[in-house]
Amino acid sequence: MIEKGRVTIPSEEGFAEQTKMIAEKWGADAIRDSDGTELDAAVKALGKKIYAAYFPTRGHNEFIEKHMDECPQMYLMSERVVAMEEQVTIPFMETYYEEQLTPNYHDNPKQYWEVINRTTGEIISVDLWDVNTENHTVTIHGTIPWHQYTVSFLAYIIWDPVEMYNHLTNNWGDKPHEIPFDIRQPASNQFMFRTFANWLEENPDVDVVRFTTFFYQFSLVFNQLGQEKFVDWFGYGASVSVKALKEFEEEKGYALRPEDFIDEGYYPSSFRIPTQRYLDYIDFTAKFVSQTAKKLVDMAHEKNKEAIMFLGDQWIGTEPYGKYFEEIGLDAVVGSVGDGTTLRMIADIPHVKYTEGRFLPYFFPDTFFEGNDPSIEAMENWLCARRAILRKPIDRMGYGGYLSLANKFPKFIDTVSAITNQFREIHAHTKGRKPYSGLKVAVLNCWGRLRTWQAFTVAHALYCKEAYSYHGILEALSGMNVDVEFISFDDVMEKEIDSSIDVMINAGDFGTAFSGGEIWKNEKLVANLRSWIHQGGGFVGVGEPTAWQHQGRFFQLADCFGLDKEVGFSLSTDKYFKEVTEKHFITEDTSSFHFGESMKNIYSLHADTTILEFSNDEIHLATNEFGKGRTVYIAGLPYCLENTRLLMRALYYAAGKEADMYHWFSTNLHCEVNVYPEQNVYCVINNTNDVQETIVYLGNDSQKACILKPNEIVWEEYE
Amino acid sequence: MIEKGRVTIPSEEGFAEQTKMIAEKWGADAIRDSDGTELDAAVKALGKKIYAAYFPTRGHNEFIEKHMDECPQMYLMSERVVAMEEQVTIPFMETYYEEQLTPNYHDNPKQYWEVINRTTGEIISVDLWDVNTENHTVTIHGTIPWHQYTVSFLAYIIWDPVEMYNHLTNNWGDKPHEIPFDIRQPASNQFMFRTFANWLEENPDVDVVRFTTFFYQFSLVFNQLGQEKFVDWFGYGASVSVKALKEFEEEKGYALRPEDFIDEGYYPSSFRIPTQRYLDYIDFTAKFVSQTAKKLVDMAHEKNKEAIMFLGDQWIGTEPYGKYFEEIGLDAVVGSVGDGTTLRMIADIPHVKYTEGRFLPYFFPDTFFEGNDPSIEAMENWLCARRAILRKPIDRMGYGGYLSLANKFPKFIDTVSAITNQFREIHAHTKGRKPYSGLKVAVLNCWGRLRTWQAFTVAHALYCKEAYSYHGILEALSGMNVDVEFISFDDVMEKEIDSSIDVMINAGDFGTAFSGGEIWKNEKLVANLRSWIHQGGGFVGVGEPTAWQHQGRFFQLADCFGLDKEVGFSLSTDKYFKEVTEKHFITEDTSSFHFGESMKNIYSLHADTTILEFSNDEIHLATNEFGKGRTVYIAGLPYCLENTRLLMRALYYAAGKEADMYHWFSTNLHCEVNVYPEQNVYCVINNTNDVQETIVYLGNDSQKACILKPNEIVWEEYE
Repeated sequence: MIEKGRVTIPSEEGFAEQTKMIAEKWGADAIRDSDGTELDAAVKALGKKIYAAYFPTRGHNEFIEKHMDECPQMYLMSERVVAMEEQVTIPFMETYYEEQLTPNYHDNPKQYWEVINRTTGEIISVDLWDVNTENHTVTIHGTIPWHQYTVSFLAYIIWDPVEMYNHLTNNWGDKPHEIPFDIRQPASNQFMFRTFANWLEENPDVDVVRFTTFFYQFSLVFNQLGQEKFVDWFGYGASVSVKALKEFEEEKGYALRPEDFIDEGYYPSSFRIPTQRYLDYIDFTAKFVSQTAKKLVDMAHEKNKEAIMFLGDQWIGTEPYGKYFEEIGLDAVVGSVGDGTTLRMIADIPHVKYTEGRFLPYFFPDTFFEGNDPSIEAMENWLCARRAILRKPIDRMGYGGYLSLANKFPKFIDTVSAITNQFREIHAHTKGRKPYSGLKVAVLNCWGRLRTWQAFTVAHALYCKEAYSYHGILEALSGMNVDVEFISFDDVMEKEIDSSIDVMINAGDFGTAFSGGEIWKNEKLVANLRSWIHQGGGFVGVGEPTAWQHQGRFFQLADCFGLDKEVGFSLSTDKYFKEVTEKHFITEDTSSFHFGESMKNIYSLHADTTILEFSNDEIHLATNEFGKGRTVYIAGLPYCLENTRLLMRALYYAAGKEADMYHWFSTNLHCEVNVYPEQNVYCVINNTNDVQETIVYLGNDSQKACILKPNEIVWEEYE
Repeated sequence: MIEKGRVTIPSEEGFAEQTKMIAEKWGADAIRDSDGTELDAAVKALGKKIYAAYFPTRGHNEFIEKHMDECPQMYLMSERVVAMEEQVTIPFMETYYEEQLTPNYHDNPKQYWEVINRTTGEIISVDLWDVNTENHTVTIHGTIPWHQYTVSFLAYIIWDPVEMYNHLTNNWGDKPHEIPFDIRQPASNQFMFRTFANWLEENPDVDVVRFTTFFYQFSLVFNQLGQEKFVDWFGYGASVSVKALKEFEEEKGYALRPEDFIDEGYYPSSFRIPTQRYLDYIDFTAKFVSQTAKKLVDMAHEKNKEAIMFLGDQWIGTEPYGKYFEEIGLDAVVGSVGDGTTLRMIADIPHVKYTEGRFLPYFFPDTFFEGNDPSIEAMENWLCARRAILRKPIDRMGYGGYLSLANKFPKFIDTVSAITNQFREIHAHTKGRKPYSGLKVAVLNCWGRLRTWQAFTVAHALYCKEAYSYHGILEALSGMNVDVEFISFDDVMEKEIDSSIDVMINAGDFGTAFSGGEIWKNEKLVANLRSWIHQGGGFVGVGEPTAWQHQGRFFQLADCFGLDKEVGFSLSTDKYFKEVTEKHFITEDTSSFHFGESMKNIYSLHADTTILEFSNDEIHLATNEFGKGRTVYIAGLPYCLENTRLLMRALYYAAGKEADMYHWFSTNLHCEVNVYPEQNVYCVINNTNDVQETIVYLGNDSQKACILKPNEIVWEEYE
């Protein structure tokens, strides 16, 4: 008999009865409100733990409307305009949404804006341009004809973009736009603390304060048509202000430029190689945010309420793997579970008592509409998450949105009760103990630990054409029986490399922070890795690993990979090696290859390279030996069960631990096995919606045949 | 009744009778020998013009064996070797063919070789390495562990690689290897002139001296297994010697380094951006070669013989579009016709009385073997060439190899007689007059005029995976009713752009000499082109045109194209524009698209860009307006008749001359029309082996239906 609990559900006014019924079905022990809903007395009387979402920096227009100069700000770049003569006028707001953004004329543009010649990169002297605050234009004088110019300007954010999204999605009509405020500013800071203190007084029956989130929204900018124009879940842009810039200069001893935030119009996304200046700003902001958030958390604790944070919306500066996170003193983090990767991002968070996943779909009309079956998305979401939970469990799960809407879909209600039962079952069996891992794998990129499980992400858990062929690596790893850590180039540069690492993965497109860019010119990095591999390290490269054009090579570890990418410079050199090794440990279970966006023109440097896939006159999968070490090259690895198996085999092979793979192993790649030695229990999961047969290799080399129902998880004890 | 002539055939000893018969069938008026064949008295007595191949720098082992230090030389790079300790030994000859190459120990290695740390790029001091001339190794001391090292060494070429190829292909067995000599060296120089003088005396019945070629072989290097290792039809590497280096320093005032020829192991292929140092060396060599060749030509003329050059083997330094070519004073150039592009490369050569094409297949056993039908290759070769001949005719055509071998294939004999008749017919109708051109198109790259019709070429007319999607542009242009010229960035940099140019084409992969590489950072270049396009110029980009990562753009003329390539830095910016314009002038005749290797992640920058093909969530064909000008972007253009039509439409559209396209136009893209206004004659050709029906638009807007037999060419006079 499995205990109930571990589940949080949303509710709303006048829905107590049905809430009680659904709570019963799902074994829910906590109830939350959501953006746009409130819990009434009847619901609160159901005897469940009560979560209240708290928005520290919005929802008080009565205050902020009196202090519009304390709205959060952002550096934005105008469109690029070509000068046809010696003067040009740039309507810099033209492609921005005036309901969301308005230029900051309060702080002197001549001091805080930049006009740049984008053909040469030079900054235009402030005497050569004027701002017209009526029609939001900048006129530049003495321009060079046929050069391109841009204006980098400061703008106030006057509509909270998440509330804007919910507002538009749910047609909240003339509901006033919630105006955000920046608690770095004096009045807002004071107001926030005072308001929270009052709120604590007024809400004695709330058990858990669910901060949604703290202070700074990730970058989310809309265009003149109200469409999303720019989204970066990691973007620090909306935390900027003149006050912040001044305090940064005091703290770090140098001043930032608008260009540090504009970055040629790319804005410093996590795909860009971070500059030291930008890393300093992240550090500066994280420190301030953490210290301020700590005060709110302490206030909640004083009132005997738990303080938890939603890892989403205004999470900028609270990065859970950053060095200031611990001191916030949160009881828990709750985050949205888009897939196994985001599940692990939440589950692996250190320094909290528990973690909670908010599962999909969100109970909003964009999914819950007549004719649609939300239970399909719910089960897909669960299957991805379950693999990851079995490696590192979240402690609680939940859903969000309008429960009344979900209640109209009975099949969905049943599916979720099956899911919540499986979830509790996992805890009942594993008691949160660690599963067996056969390897330790380190993902190597510019961000390292700070962005654990966050590589290759543009918008949280959303598909991206240029990223999915790399993100699949993380998704595969999230449920694989290996330990995973994320390391940066600093971790392997001039120091002894952690000997517990079996395999490193470097993956990404040339020039991005994930591949590494120019750092591959660094002789110490390259020499250190060569030595490590030669002594037995495994190195797996995906896409354009170790890529930088230097001294006749594109892949700087081409010698270790035994291959390189032909970029057009060595076409005169004959490429002899095209023969595929058909039977190999890595491809043993592969029936067809899926390289996603793949990579072109990869060729073998010598006969020793073992080519495992060769088509269109190029290599997409190969392995090579370098001393005692092994490398594997993969052209791309979108997530699917076939690729999960391919990657697992590649990792065990690269580590030279092929034999170990056959402990707690499923012959059928649609199933996976996890074992919990401390509990003497293992489970076999069916990751598909079909019946699967498989042979399970146990730890003692004995084998066991099993047949699993769709989505089934089977638990077995062993001696 | 068409006159005979304009055709050269090979012959050989004891083959006079059959030669006479074939000469009759083909209307041949000239007979040549080939490498490995000689003409006997009986053949010479046939009353045809006699060509004798002359090899100025090989075929005299009795001489060169006494002066082996005068063999041609080449800088070669060893394999890259990783140092594991503080000493490493590099067997630098390991991957070279010792029958072809032997190290030059005669000139002091410490003075003329270079040892380089390829991890840092630094040159290793000569005191830190020693050469072992016994086993051809270099030992380097004080190496940094895990860095890579290479040796750049001088080697003598002791087997002429073309004779080697013929030798191996025809199993000449123990026939001695022909050892080449370098006529920059004193004894060889003297020997060459003396030998040629004697030869002229001994061969009074030769009418035409066919130099094959002059002095320096293009780069052709074989590996330890006797396989081709490196081939660059433009490579100047085999013209190097210590004497050349010294004379270069005297003439240019600075010394070259081995690295100027090694180029990180790429060797300076025409795909590499040429350095000024390398361009200086080309100039230095071309000047010397031309001046020396002129003396041979003058000697031939004194004996009332024509002097013609085969544009092939030892052609280095004789580039026909270079500034010294004219002074050689040649009567003609003969070249191998691989396709329409190579035909035009020959036909467009200035400063000669006539040009001659040597068609394929060559009468060698690799094509003429039992069961194979060489007439198929002959007809394919002719159909490609014919398109080009109708734009700019070569004056003569011919074949090479063993006529006795060809004679065993009667169908081939008949096919060639049909071909030669069509060829003479063309001359009879056009009298060499210029056909109508609707546009002037300029191909823009680093080489410009010097490499007219030679862009995207690795080995003469051979397929290359990374080049065919660009080379197709030239092949399409070679037979299109437009004037074509090749211009360099200097031609459009700081000067008024030639106003007669309707459309420019910039095509190639990022970083190559054909796309242009870092030159796209040059503000003057970019501004000048923007201005030119804005005033009405057409600009067509293929692949990665104007590509250099700078100031937030990958394509530096992205604003003109209305699109850019997503390289992973702007993934956070929403890409809205995916709508395809189905009906458009450019795609009017296109049923299916062929982009060859194509290009990934091209996206539109704004709604104004007209997208003509969109698949895999990326653009492969689009057009945009910039001021009065138009641009067209194409992801790749391998040669086929569909793409020829697509390019023609793109060019006329970019030029804003759509209406003009319909003069002398075939509605069926498998046919083409050429008109010769001065002769009041036009022709319609069928470029396929099937019957084709088409409607021909005449100059006066009237139309005429036509049905053409396979391969047919139809001539019509008009008022």
